[in-house]
Amino acid sequence: MVAPLGRTAVRRLPEKQVHERAGLDAVLDAGLVAHVAVPGEDGQPFVIPVAYSRDGDSVLFHGSTASRLFRSLAAGAPTCLTVTMLDGLVVARSLFESSMHYRSAMVLGVATVLEGDAKVRGLERVSEHLMPGRWADARQPNRKELAATLVLALPLTEWSVKVSDGPPEDEAADLELPVWAGVLPLHETYGEPSAAPDLPEGLEVPGYVRDWSRQ
Amino acid sequence: MVAPLGRTAVRRLPEKQVHERAGLDAVLDAGLVAHVAVPGEDGQPFVIPVAYSRDGDSVLFHGSTASRLFRSLAAGAPTCLTVTMLDGLVVARSLFESSMHYRSAMVLGVATVLEGDAKVRGLERVSEHLMPGRWADARQPNRKELAATLVLALPLTEWSVKVSDGPPEDEAADLELPVWAGVLPLHETYGEPSAAPDLPEGLEVPGYVRDWSRQ
Repeated sequence: MVAPLGRTAVRRLPEKQVHERAGLDAVLDAGLVAHVAVPGEDGQPFVIPVAYSRDGDSVLFHGSTASRLFRSLAAGAPTCLTVTMLDGLVVARSLFESSMHYRSAMVLGVATVLEGDAKVRGLERVSEHLMPGRWADARQPNRKELAATLVLALPLTEWSVKVSDGPPEDEAADLELPVWAGVLPLHETYGEPSAAPDLPEGLEVPGYVRDWSRQ
Repeated sequence: MVAPLGRTAVRRLPEKQVHERAGLDAVLDAGLVAHVAVPGEDGQPFVIPVAYSRDGDSVLFHGSTASRLFRSLAAGAPTCLTVTMLDGLVVARSLFESSMHYRSAMVLGVATVLEGDAKVRGLERVSEHLMPGRWADARQPNRKELAATLVLALPLTEWSVKVSDGPPEDEAADLELPVWAGVLPLHETYGEPSAAPDLPEGLEVPGYVRDWSRQ
């Protein structure tokens, strides 16, 4: 499958663009947080971090029904959801070629509001994306909590993906400069779980929490 | 100093808002990537990851002069620049209270274009933010590279900062549930530097690269 061209066509650095749908899914499935554009008043945009999950051919995210900004998305304002992971620093001989390793996915479109069973299943998807195995173990949302939560679905129809990796790409004239060049990888890892101070005695860290890992 | 209220007032989760300017500086100074809102055609916004740096009372970021989207910011379109760092997963007894530890800063306003010496100093600031010590060692931007680069400055006048930390905040009724709860910290670290394959022999990793660290 090929990324639709048009508004999301990568005009800059086209060699970094990924055209396969599997590449989009890989980036969305690997991230923890997305940044979403939300229109405010007088043309002022906002960029808000959200928890999210891919669900088949959509990306789901949630917010508060009390948020003016989220309500504007629910009312059909066009949005953009971007997920970016940094994987390292590219230390080139020239400052111009110095950059970062990253994986970034951008999805454009209009979100729709999930209701009823689809809403609960959407919350489960987002929860299981961040904390696999937790949904079945934790206390499920009650009616009041569901009413306080908006769950939005953005279809994966217009999107672009860019992946930057590999060594520095210095110009030929710079290769003999007496300057070190290379890549410094950046890793994300979970540390040791820290129990809530008010946890009753005898409750051990669940196996599924121990299994959570990054990258 | 107090964060200006108004459009960036935190209406949701006000207990997480940080009002001190030092708190804004701390988040901006700790991040590596920002997400910037850029208006497209037909009301379609874009959210683009950028390298950035705080510079006193502004935040600087750069892009390509060939980018239509960056040119719209240079032309005075209102924007929002958001920096978010994830610090852990908050595993509460209820799914509703489950969330993330994070630090997030949002800056609203109109960016201005830096030119001449201010432009070069701006590039130095962004470079030194990501790669301290590198500017003096690497090949400086030449006239052609400078012409291909837009450097934008967004003043720190309208902003908000939210920091989420601490243990899960479950409702009293959930505290006796037989479910583990706690926090799983998330760490970012640099790995071992990997030299460019075309690096001449005898060039060692510089000390300033060895000194780069996260958190």
